[in-house]
Amino acid sequence: MELKLVAPFTSIPSIQKGLDTVEQMMLRQLENYHPDLKTATSHIFSSGGKRIRPTIILLIGSMLNAEYERLLKLATAIELLHTATLVHDDLIDGSLLRRGIPTLNSKWSPAATVLTGDFLFASASDIASKTNSVEVMRLIANTLMTIVNGEVDQLFTNHCITTVEEYYRRIYSKTASLFETSTHTAAVISNVDSQQVEVLRKFGYELGMAFQIVDDVLDYIGDESTVGKPVGGDLRQGLVTLPMLCFMQDNPHHHAVEEFMSGQFIQDETEILQLVKEIAKSDAINRSQQTAFEFAGRAENYLMEFPDTLERDALIEMTRYIIERHK
Amino acid sequence: MELKLVAPFTSIPSIQKGLDTVEQMMLRQLENYHPDLKTATSHIFSSGGKRIRPTIILLIGSMLNAEYERLLKLATAIELLHTATLVHDDLIDGSLLRRGIPTLNSKWSPAATVLTGDFLFASASDIASKTNSVEVMRLIANTLMTIVNGEVDQLFTNHCITTVEEYYRRIYSKTASLFETSTHTAAVISNVDSQQVEVLRKFGYELGMAFQIVDDVLDYIGDESTVGKPVGGDLRQGLVTLPMLCFMQDNPHHHAVEEFMSGQFIQDETEILQLVKEIAKSDAINRSQQTAFEFAGRAENYLMEFPDTLERDALIEMTRYIIERHK
Repeated sequence: MELKLVAPFTSIPSIQKGLDTVEQMMLRQLENYHPDLKTATSHIFSSGGKRIRPTIILLIGSMLNAEYERLLKLATAIELLHTATLVHDDLIDGSLLRRGIPTLNSKWSPAATVLTGDFLFASASDIASKTNSVEVMRLIANTLMTIVNGEVDQLFTNHCITTVEEYYRRIYSKTASLFETSTHTAAVISNVDSQQVEVLRKFGYELGMAFQIVDDVLDYIGDESTVGKPVGGDLRQGLVTLPMLCFMQDNPHHHAVEEFMSGQFIQDETEILQLVKEIAKSDAINRSQQTAFEFAGRAENYLMEFPDTLERDALIEMTRYIIERHK
Repeated sequence: MELKLVAPFTSIPSIQKGLDTVEQMMLRQLENYHPDLKTATSHIFSSGGKRIRPTIILLIGSMLNAEYERLLKLATAIELLHTATLVHDDLIDGSLLRRGIPTLNSKWSPAATVLTGDFLFASASDIASKTNSVEVMRLIANTLMTIVNGEVDQLFTNHCITTVEEYYRRIYSKTASLFETSTHTAAVISNVDSQQVEVLRKFGYELGMAFQIVDDVLDYIGDESTVGKPVGGDLRQGLVTLPMLCFMQDNPHHHAVEEFMSGQFIQDETEILQLVKEIAKSDAINRSQQTAFEFAGRAENYLMEFPDTLERDALIEMTRYIIERHK
């Protein structure tokens, strides 16, 4: 299976090799299990994704001289956990496309999709246990609780969010928590001192926040063929993200804003696309991007606390890639 | 919340006290999380269940002088994992009743049910990590993979099972694997030698197999008001269990058997109840019960390898309760 890495941070051959091994380890988890589980999971793995989390883990571990085998297991565990959350997430949202290819739930029954996600959770936990670190396992379990709690929150909170704090809390649960745990656990298994562990944890947090804000911006200004899903998906689901939030602040009396504020989601497709266009050309995009830059800037600053190495440079490149990407 | 323990093995006060603590620890996992998650999980916890797995764990750990705090955490983790699998299982089967009360999926949306199960998995993993044993976490992760693989197998295997080996494989995945892991992990954290760990692992295996066979028999001869769900549920789902398997062997030309063998499940409710009655009064029940006795007998023999203590007696009583119970 070919990796679809597009970012510049693959220039270090050992990292690319490590990512290939992670890919093989993900597939190897399926050996000895039901053929349909293999089909389902291969389908998800083949949709590729950017493998950003394992790349970060390999880079940090390599920078800090972590034991290579443990590092590979950690990277595999985190990517499996990430994949598991996507599978259940797509089922819950009823999404039909991810990364331009049909989601599992668009092809399979809900029952099979639930089970495939469960299997991926168990696989992630299994590989994580092979890092031989109880601390790593505890952090991973906690992250899953945070992610699920965030999804429950999104599912049951009927009012639309109106503050940046609420938005931050949501994207922390959804995305930044796993970025944070990726960098945190990579530092933990590298046996560095607690101050360095803390700096890397914060780096992951800032990077993850930047990542999700960019994702939310791309949902307004992205090119459907590049992003792999139609624009306006968040609005269509009644989800207020940073661009809409900025737009709401600037245009409190806009009729669509008033509709949203009263808890009515826009049903009409033409109206949604019209609002997407309006937001896309407004200052809300600029302000949202600026916020993402600020998070990424703080992330980069944390990296500056480490010596200048090839790996640190690659992490800086990745941070920049994350805010400059178009998909 | 009142525990609904009905078995005689609660006569040891420290075990009953331990079970109360387990109950509190399960509820404490929900603090700081979304109120709806609390409502959903409390609903499941309040349905009680027999808490057989934590009881076994507490008894084994107490018999082997395990550290009490670790033992409580292990018992809580295993019961949470068990509950998580029930939540997703009921969703997959579309079951509306369990233990006589409505299932979560009968009241909530599939999305909420998926997330509640995920949260319980994460909670189980979180508490398991507090046992500070990587071995325990690895065993739990592996068990979840076995359980899920078994469910996938059941979901995608269209032919009805025709051999006892297939049936054993299925009930191992479904039930005995978690019993086995309960006794295995209880032994692991008790720091006994590997030979004793192995004996207790096997005890759990035999006990779990006996437990599921009795469950499958009760699906034919149980009293609906005692069991908490209608009889004939397995047949209704097209599921062949040991009583039906024995009946099929004795009556290969019975019209319902031929229907089943050709892959057609019986749709007509009158026909199902008729077949349930016929099997219930046939020798198939006796033979199935005999098989359960054999598994339980082997389980009891393994216990005989340990010194005569109150806890060992209670485990023997529990083994007998498991094969003699009516619910």
